[in-house]
Amino acid sequence: MTIRVGVIGAGAIGSDHIARLTHQVVGSAVTAVFDIATERAEAAAAPGATVHGSWEDLVAADDVDAVLIASPGELHPKQAIACIRAGKPVLCEKPIATETPAALRVVEAEVAGGRRLVQVGFMRRYDVGYRDLRKAMTDGIIGIPLLAHAVHRNPSVPDTFQGEMSLTDSVVHEFDLFRWLFDAEIAAVTVLPVKQSPLGPPHLRDPQIVILQMIGGEVVTVESFVNCQYGYDVRCEIVGATGTVSLDNPRTTVVIGPAQRSERVPTDWRERFGSAYLNELQSWVTGLAAGRVEGASTWDGYAATAVAEAAVASYAEGVRIPIALVDKPALYV
Amino acid sequence: MTIRVGVIGAGAIGSDHIARLTHQVVGSAVTAVFDIATERAEAAAAPGATVHGSWEDLVAADDVDAVLIASPGELHPKQAIACIRAGKPVLCEKPIATETPAALRVVEAEVAGGRRLVQVGFMRRYDVGYRDLRKAMTDGIIGIPLLAHAVHRNPSVPDTFQGEMSLTDSVVHEFDLFRWLFDAEIAAVTVLPVKQSPLGPPHLRDPQIVILQMIGGEVVTVESFVNCQYGYDVRCEIVGATGTVSLDNPRTTVVIGPAQRSERVPTDWRERFGSAYLNELQSWVTGLAAGRVEGASTWDGYAATAVAEAAVASYAEGVRIPIALVDKPALYV
Amino acid sequence: MTIRVGVIGAGAIGSDHIARLTHQVVGSAVTAVFDIATERAEAAAAPGATVHGSWEDLVAADDVDAVLIASPGELHPKQAIACIRAGKPVLCEKPIATETPAALRVVEAEVAGGRRLVQVGFMRRYDVGYRDLRKAMTDGIIGIPLLAHAVHRNPSVPDTFQGEMSLTDSVVHEFDLFRWLFDAEIAAVTVLPVKQSPLGPPHLRDPQIVILQMIGGEVVTVESFVNCQYGYDVRCEIVGATGTVSLDNPRTTVVIGPAQRSERVPTDWRERFGSAYLNELQSWVTGLAAGRVEGASTWDGYAATAVAEAAVASYAEGVRIPIALVDKPALYV
Amino acid sequence: MTIRVGVIGAGAIGSDHIARLTHQVVGSAVTAVFDIATERAEAAAAPGATVHGSWEDLVAADDVDAVLIASPGELHPKQAIACIRAGKPVLCEKPIATETPAALRVVEAEVAGGRRLVQVGFMRRYDVGYRDLRKAMTDGIIGIPLLAHAVHRNPSVPDTFQGEMSLTDSVVHEFDLFRWLFDAEIAAVTVLPVKQSPLGPPHLRDPQIVILQMIGGEVVTVESFVNCQYGYDVRCEIVGATGTVSLDNPRTTVVIGPAQRSERVPTDWRERFGSAYLNELQSWVTGLAAGRVEGASTWDGYAATAVAEAAVASYAEGVRIPIALVDKPALYV
Repeated sequence: MTIRVGVIGAGAIGSDHIARLTHQVVGSAVTAVFDIATERAEAAAAPGATVHGSWEDLVAADDVDAVLIASPGELHPKQAIACIRAGKPVLCEKPIATETPAALRVVEAEVAGGRRLVQVGFMRRYDVGYRDLRKAMTDGIIGIPLLAHAVHRNPSVPDTFQGEMSLTDSVVHEFDLFRWLFDAEIAAVTVLPVKQSPLGPPHLRDPQIVILQMIGGEVVTVESFVNCQYGYDVRCEIVGATGTVSLDNPRTTVVIGPAQRSERVPTDWRERFGSAYLNELQSWVTGLAAGRVEGASTWDGYAATAVAEAAVASYAEGVRIPIALVDKPALYV
Repeated sequence: MTIRVGVIGAGAIGSDHIARLTHQVVGSAVTAVFDIATERAEAAAAPGATVHGSWEDLVAADDVDAVLIASPGELHPKQAIACIRAGKPVLCEKPIATETPAALRVVEAEVAGGRRLVQVGFMRRYDVGYRDLRKAMTDGIIGIPLLAHAVHRNPSVPDTFQGEMSLTDSVVHEFDLFRWLFDAEIAAVTVLPVKQSPLGPPHLRDPQIVILQMIGGEVVTVESFVNCQYGYDVRCEIVGATGTVSLDNPRTTVVIGPAQRSERVPTDWRERFGSAYLNELQSWVTGLAAGRVEGASTWDGYAATAVAEAAVASYAEGVRIPIALVDKPALYV
Repeated sequence: MTIRVGVIGAGAIGSDHIARLTHQVVGSAVTAVFDIATERAEAAAAPGATVHGSWEDLVAADDVDAVLIASPGELHPKQAIACIRAGKPVLCEKPIATETPAALRVVEAEVAGGRRLVQVGFMRRYDVGYRDLRKAMTDGIIGIPLLAHAVHRNPSVPDTFQGEMSLTDSVVHEFDLFRWLFDAEIAAVTVLPVKQSPLGPPHLRDPQIVILQMIGGEVVTVESFVNCQYGYDVRCEIVGATGTVSLDNPRTTVVIGPAQRSERVPTDWRERFGSAYLNELQSWVTGLAAGRVEGASTWDGYAATAVAEAAVASYAEGVRIPIALVDKPALYV
Repeated sequence: MTIRVGVIGAGAIGSDHIARLTHQVVGSAVTAVFDIATERAEAAAAPGATVHGSWEDLVAADDVDAVLIASPGELHPKQAIACIRAGKPVLCEKPIATETPAALRVVEAEVAGGRRLVQVGFMRRYDVGYRDLRKAMTDGIIGIPLLAHAVHRNPSVPDTFQGEMSLTDSVVHEFDLFRWLFDAEIAAVTVLPVKQSPLGPPHLRDPQIVILQMIGGEVVTVESFVNCQYGYDVRCEIVGATGTVSLDNPRTTVVIGPAQRSERVPTDWRERFGSAYLNELQSWVTGLAAGRVEGASTWDGYAATAVAEAAVASYAEGVRIPIALVDKPALYV
């Protein structure tokens, strides 16, 4: 059985997904592509795939069983809702929406449909390291989890990168992850300014410390540093009542050279999380073939957007911002 | 394009391969299976695949593009030769033959055919760690490679395991790997007895030290310990003129508990090399679709068998055994 | 030349110091001991040492060149001031005072005397790891330092341990260290409550997150966890504009056992910082013999007390507490 | 109580020892120095120490309680014997003798005297890492020890360094250590040539593999590489029936920089074993004050010389050389 996927958006992430679905995922084919820049869609589409003139046509096409949304974030809500209304499963790149009300509209549409169709592309949930971390927590290896420390470091960002984007684009992964790892909502977020690195764009407050307080009292400190220069370094330590478990960078080899023994730190997110993206897609396709929709839900996407919104407010106002979510629909319990 | 594979042998390794080719490899399907125990073939075969009454029938079948041999080692030479004569690519589990003369017959058959059709299943060449190790060597990270240390430890073996098997079944991987890593033949092998572990079968000399001398003068010390109790631990350090590079166990997480900080050591070869097997199969299938045969060649298989034979002689006689190979046919240069 | 030391306080820490000064430090002898419990003083005193009936007598004694104060913290200010007035160098265990006004009185007495006589016992400054850390920072290995993460974990505390004590007794080390590492004062402190460990005393808020904001904008997150069960684990990572440097637990050996590779985590502060105490004492004695007083000054002690006071206020009130120090006397610049 | 030490030989090692005994060791004073170059003795001697005109005078001096021999190795036997005859304890730098017969003469002299007076300067026995390693072995952490792997790497050697010296000067430490760790004699030694590093002196066979077979059947592989360029790297792994324990380089901090996470490797033996030398001297002095002579004995020195002699023979002849020791005198049991 082959899942025929239509892909909306053929930029960097979209074309990566097309390549994976075509060459690396078992059981899928990309039969339709849309991009606002048609030549980009044509360049990315596999031979035999249809390049559609509108995303609405792609969603409606008979040879599209499922849709992957990799368009700009502002378009995600209406595209996801269209897929829901067409009864087609959708893997929507994060964020589900750039603002909470729009995210809620997707929630409402899906609830109205009565069944889960949407998976939000928080791919780190498919990283083998995070899965091992979560397993250690649920297996009771560290006792009751109490707090966590995380770092999220990128080597550099372009000058167009705005300060809030480190919260909405980077740290949003931590918003989703710690909800998933602690299996709980985030009650409040505080963004603390830090002495600014002289090596980043002058307008950018970087690094920052973000503090998450979970509804159960667990606290997470997240360092966000998007101009750390040295590599792409994502790590965390979960502290429980009897021990800790840490996510470390994967390692295959150790090199000894002049006066030092060293292990590699990844240099970009492709190197670090390429296999997580592949696992995510394979899991999505295998699940669809079996009639299942799993992974981060529309609710998870809504909650992450709500935390990101609060983080941006805390960034602007310099204070702790509580987060109030709507009641959770039964569909997501 | 789908490569239709016929699998000879549906035991543990064969059925693992069938599952991978069916569910995890892109571009392949298992269309034919043979096993001396027909019910085993039927249990392992995917729906729609033909269970053949003889391996000769399977090799000849029109819907078989390529053959995977996972039968007992003694049968490998004649099965591989039959595939060669039928002009069908074959992935033959190691060893290519249990004795040198038989290995040479496969070499001769392939040379007579004028093109490479056989890949020998030394899957560690597809492990990402070994590939990083080799890249560090060829990139000149450690200067000219001079020597290496390796350990090959298994948690335990059944009572039926004979002493020579640690050489022909386990250490044979190192025979192939160090030929590949140093890009050179092994000139001599010495097997040294070591104080016997009281926890292994009484008849088994275990652990052992195996010393490989390469034709270029490089030396490799290999510890073989098939009853080490604690896990499946395969590591090595390559020492060059200016530094070293080591293969370490993969790591995703680090756990801190009572008075210690720990990383996991794998407990069996499936955990450690499962992804190497998958990479090997995917690479084989992708290569075949592009008309290529790569990986360890029949010559590599012959050389490994020759070293294993010498190792068994050294084990019996307690002395260093030189290894003399026939001239290398141009096909393999 | 032998420095003749009088020790005030012969409890656990005082008697450890007496033993070190007697048997492990080159160039010192303990000639006088005082303890409120005379039998404790007599038990701890080396043969030939005088057990004094009052600490005032000890300070005044002709055969006392220098004084080590290891009495309860409340007594430190007046004892330190008495030493200053007697013109005798003093190593005062932390804190220099339990309240800021008292600390300032010691500052004023020393300034009035016109020369440094007091060293406060922040022994971690003498740990080889912290010294390497600081050297990496001052050598520019990590670029301009921007922020830091620290953990301070103890295996357990007695039931008599009160919540504020984790701030005044444990985290006070971090208050001093990050002033020293960043060479700057702390501008504000915030103590965040965390989900309480069920394994600690019921009245104890533990763990906690303490956030330090330095006057230059650097931020330090400190986890304090005095009931972590598994060991005594003190670590930190300093993040600079181009890299990071971390203090790790010392390691001599690595053990491989059932399915894991492990390194030891210390189980108590004696194991972890015993050699730092010794280095501190040796450095003090060697310095005195050469006419120098070094290490943490009375000013450092006052500043640490001021931060601890603010931390206790933040603990009580749940808000960020700014720290205002008096002007720094020229003696300490 | 102060042990008054006379030091014979004021070269690099001797003057280091003088400095340690004077400034870092508790309970010792250097009262006498001799060197064939009188000005070197005068430069190294502390104020008040006597510079003797002959080593015989130094040994006989009334104000010399114990002697430290740091002269050229050829002179060690007769100097040690003179000390024994004078009834004075002696710490003799390794080797006790450069040839077995001379070593035996020291053994005989000490046995004739009826009590242990000599400690041989195998300082690695006082390294905290090796002590932890040995404790893990004797505590049964790894089950019955079966074999070991060791590396002994130096960054470089001067052109005057001869091939055999890597065996007699460097690897001799391993000869002593594995006798100590396994608590057994070495039955045979084999030195294997390895592809020569192009970066060392042309006349030097380097690296080499040395194989030790213990009388109980344990086997040790030792890599000796005196021109490894990158640092001073001494490590080993002891393999037991249920696990392993490894000596690793000490670590205090971890640095993250461009695409890598690194730990320091020492660059010379002073950095790596400076504290072992200090522990050795302190232990010697403390022991003498209590009437004890401990550490590596004359017998240990003789055995190490015997193994070194066999190693040099194996180096010359290319074969395994068995080692036959005389019967062990009761004094050393």
